[in-house]
Amino acid sequence: MARRPPSVAVLGGGSWGTTVASLAAQNTETTLWARAAEVAREITEEHRNTRYLGDLPLTASLRATADLAEAVSAADVLVMAVPSQSFRSVLAETVEQVRPWIPVVSLVKGLEQGTRRRMTQIVAEVMPGHPAGVLAGPNIAKEVLAGYAAAATIVMPDQRSAEMLQDLFRTKLFRVYTGTDVPGVELAGALKNVFAIAVGFGDGLKAGHNTRAMVITRSLRELARLGVAMGGDADTFAGLTGMGDLIATCTSPLSRNRHVGYELARGKSLEQIVAEMNQVAEGVKTCGVVMKLAAEHGVDMPIAHEVDSVINHGQPPVEAYRGLLRTAPGHEVHGEAW
Amino acid sequence: MARRPPSVAVLGGGSWGTTVASLAAQNTETTLWARAAEVAREITEEHRNTRYLGDLPLTASLRATADLAEAVSAADVLVMAVPSQSFRSVLAETVEQVRPWIPVVSLVKGLEQGTRRRMTQIVAEVMPGHPAGVLAGPNIAKEVLAGYAAAATIVMPDQRSAEMLQDLFRTKLFRVYTGTDVPGVELAGALKNVFAIAVGFGDGLKAGHNTRAMVITRSLRELARLGVAMGGDADTFAGLTGMGDLIATCTSPLSRNRHVGYELARGKSLEQIVAEMNQVAEGVKTCGVVMKLAAEHGVDMPIAHEVDSVINHGQPPVEAYRGLLRTAPGHEVHGEAW
Repeated sequence: MARRPPSVAVLGGGSWGTTVASLAAQNTETTLWARAAEVAREITEEHRNTRYLGDLPLTASLRATADLAEAVSAADVLVMAVPSQSFRSVLAETVEQVRPWIPVVSLVKGLEQGTRRRMTQIVAEVMPGHPAGVLAGPNIAKEVLAGYAAAATIVMPDQRSAEMLQDLFRTKLFRVYTGTDVPGVELAGALKNVFAIAVGFGDGLKAGHNTRAMVITRSLRELARLGVAMGGDADTFAGLTGMGDLIATCTSPLSRNRHVGYELARGKSLEQIVAEMNQVAEGVKTCGVVMKLAAEHGVDMPIAHEVDSVINHGQPPVEAYRGLLRTAPGHEVHGEAW
Repeated sequence: MARRPPSVAVLGGGSWGTTVASLAAQNTETTLWARAAEVAREITEEHRNTRYLGDLPLTASLRATADLAEAVSAADVLVMAVPSQSFRSVLAETVEQVRPWIPVVSLVKGLEQGTRRRMTQIVAEVMPGHPAGVLAGPNIAKEVLAGYAAAATIVMPDQRSAEMLQDLFRTKLFRVYTGTDVPGVELAGALKNVFAIAVGFGDGLKAGHNTRAMVITRSLRELARLGVAMGGDADTFAGLTGMGDLIATCTSPLSRNRHVGYELARGKSLEQIVAEMNQVAEGVKTCGVVMKLAAEHGVDMPIAHEVDSVINHGQPPVEAYRGLLRTAPGHEVHGEAW
């Protein structure tokens, strides 16, 4: 006898939340919560989300609502796709409606400011007892929705849950791998945005593909060092949610964090860049947090340090590059951080 | 008292050999051997190598010659920059002139056909007793020569030699790290070209940045699995000569191997593509070798297999992608190869 497939509620009608909801709707009954009623109406009636995804068509069976209780109350799986700074408050609003036991899957790449908590740690605090994991990978929303082949990994505290959830999100062209390193995947996702800004500096300064490959490679080392110190598995950082996501974020013209670095290097002010974007670039907020974590865990992070100096302390991007080139390289694996 | 800096001979006047010779000439007396007398004359007299490097200026003190004995006889360091298929014969020609003890540094990314030997294994056979290592990294010759920041790693069997050679090649903008994993670096360099062809397929088929990041990430896993089975260190594959070089090769429009895959996917024949290039794309020859090594070492290599099917067995590139998408993904780290 076939089991009833779990229904999915996705909270957050931005580009990635809408895209994942559209994927899930191909496999099971899926409801998307969007804060703006007009966005919800457009998704349900016109199968589009023009504010974030242009004219790309969504799965026709996907329903959206601006009523959080309605979205959550019947869901067997809760997917969180709101910005990291709203994660706790939106989750708290659902506590009274959410069904017991159901897993919570975060799509959010960032750490909570102030507390520096990972999103699944917030789930454990707000909604104790619910298994919490992450779906992440090198995924540019518009490309996934447009049907380009892509891959992601779903990590849950136990492999069995990961395998059951895998089937809700995978399609022929969206390959979903499984894993159990929840902290590693969350840390990789939060930290990589900082390094995408560094790569954006280089691109804005018209550095070449060599420079970019160097910065990406050394960034991953830096990121993995902190990630492992904070409890992640080294394997994770070499995988889709580490290296893979870093490559996509650092090389796609659609990447928001890379865009911020690029425009800063071209001379725009941070205020102006942020004002012109209609979505959050998480790396801008994360770089200060990363510097605090690096200090706490005794990890040297020269690239992140330069990004933080530009974002938070007014250093020109060209000086960030010059600073990095001033030090002499040592042993690649056992030498200094940069 | 300052020690006399070792003089360098670079054998091979292609784009990368010329570029490395130009870097070394900034640090020490350097002679480049080019097979074509006209190329040698142009380098010495006009400080350019227009056949391979357009109008980019070379270090003025760099001298070139078409006389192999002249280039080799006074050298304290021998740098090999000829195609992998000429490596053994060119090296053998130098045996009678080369000074005793001097280190041999290979810049060559490939394995010898037939024997499947790494270049430093050929050095051990042809010139036993000379320490042999590799200088490698994410380096597009024209970008390095044009003065974009870049990084590479020099590996020698012992760390001391690597540190001494480091100073001959590094400049303010060309960062040279050190290491000792000679087999790992050579294997990474040889194998990555095969995967650059796979990425080229995707780009030629107009897949997106997601697809590219997925293929690069899963390629590195595949490459590292074989590399570790053959004696390389896992750390190497996560570094500049592994991941770094793979990223540069897979994302630069100047990459020859990526170009082959791209043009194949756009419908050109392999013969036509090869005829139109004035330099070798090592991956075309390496993919058959890789399949044999994979079989010998019992490593499953689905991406390399698809590349081999296209290059050597007439499979259309679009079928290669379809074949890969047909399998279901498992655990990202402990699951199947793809």
